[in-house]
Amino acid sequence: MLDNVRIVLVHTTHPGNIGAVARAMKNMALSSLWLVAPRHFPHADATARASGADDLLEGVRVCATLDEALADCRFVAGASARDRQVEWTGVEPRECAAQLVREAAAGPVALVFGRESSGLTNEELDRCDRLVRIPSNPAYSSLNVAMAAQVLAYELHLAARAPGPAEPPDHVPATAAQMESFFAHLAQALEDVGFTAGRHSEKLLRRLRRLFLRARPDADELTILRGILSAAQGRKSMRRR
Amino acid sequence: MLDNVRIVLVHTTHPGNIGAVARAMKNMALSSLWLVAPRHFPHADATARASGADDLLEGVRVCATLDEALADCRFVAGASARDRQVEWTGVEPRECAAQLVREAAAGPVALVFGRESSGLTNEELDRCDRLVRIPSNPAYSSLNVAMAAQVLAYELHLAARAPGPAEPPDHVPATAAQMESFFAHLAQALEDVGFTAGRHSEKLLRRLRRLFLRARPDADELTILRGILSAAQGRKSMRRR
Repeated sequence: MLDNVRIVLVHTTHPGNIGAVARAMKNMALSSLWLVAPRHFPHADATARASGADDLLEGVRVCATLDEALADCRFVAGASARDRQVEWTGVEPRECAAQLVREAAAGPVALVFGRESSGLTNEELDRCDRLVRIPSNPAYSSLNVAMAAQVLAYELHLAARAPGPAEPPDHVPATAAQMESFFAHLAQALEDVGFTAGRHSEKLLRRLRRLFLRARPDADELTILRGILSAAQGRKSMRRR
Repeated sequence: MLDNVRIVLVHTTHPGNIGAVARAMKNMALSSLWLVAPRHFPHADATARASGADDLLEGVRVCATLDEALADCRFVAGASARDRQVEWTGVEPRECAAQLVREAAAGPVALVFGRESSGLTNEELDRCDRLVRIPSNPAYSSLNVAMAAQVLAYELHLAARAPGPAEPPDHVPATAAQMESFFAHLAQALEDVGFTAGRHSEKLLRRLRRLFLRARPDADELTILRGILSAAQGRKSMRRR
């Protein structure tokens, strides 16, 4: 199941950290490493820190965008040390790892880590079903990215050893791409019915994203929701005519 | 209690690893670092990798022998990835951390890590009450020493704190009555925008109920959703007028 768990590093600055993550992953029997626009890769520092995990570095997938790295993923968790304005569904590593392993039984899932300096942006966290936060010293909470990956990889290793009960098999959550398509439709519909006029629509849309990501709709449910959006929009065009 | 938990690094070769351990410790609210005959210390690499944990490096105690570092400890755990000839009392990190924290309530305890190349010798492990082994990939089991320290420090941090609530405390799901009121509004709005006309609306509404109940919206989120419903309905009445 760990073969379906993808580690995604976004805009990594120091190639040594990429190597350290590769080693941490191989130690914990993870194998799929994706990089989104790394500053330097391949690089001698990455190879040096990877120690014996060169095979993992050789199999790395490099992408231009986070969307590309997540397109086929059915569940995405994002790591963050920072407190956020918006209310995220933040879970601890153990709970997050259990969920990733459960979901990985049915298809690719991803665990995303951000920049060394500033982590993931709000827009990147918007792409995540769950936010995972490693408990830490409040006065010094920012872990090195490879250390954070090690902690999560360790929890994934433990979770894969003793998988919990599976979710009901008839509920297959929509893919990340389907969710994005729904959110685009939602934003358009809110504008069409005049709901977002004169409001802080960005913050509002983020709130709605969190709500619908928590619900983890399946493809049928998205079809229903989009049907409702179209009906609401249709009234508007009828009115125009 | 974590103040009584001492991390002891034996014969560390690369000073960068000492710095990385210091950072990992401070992240997890540990503060007491002891070094037994390090090859290089202090060293610029240690300071660089320590990031903001310089205070911890400044407080380091350097000893000539392991005995010296453990002299006043009432309980000692030693980390090892290797299988040993001798039969040790090997435990997992979680169990080891719980025991260290328990013992630390009464006095100093130590967690000992060995050389980068070969870990702790049998003679050094003889000084330990417990051997702790991090579960790992049997084909690639040797963690970097700072990574191993990070995993154990994380478990110590968890063991030392009272378990917190899983969900953010500021997320208070709406009451059943609020949900019912929302569902009634939803049903009316779907009818108003013409979505349920000629459909099996009962089955459809049940599906939507399940979806929104899974998301467990709070009262604010319900207010947003009802605002959207009203906007969609409003278009219709405007059209009528």
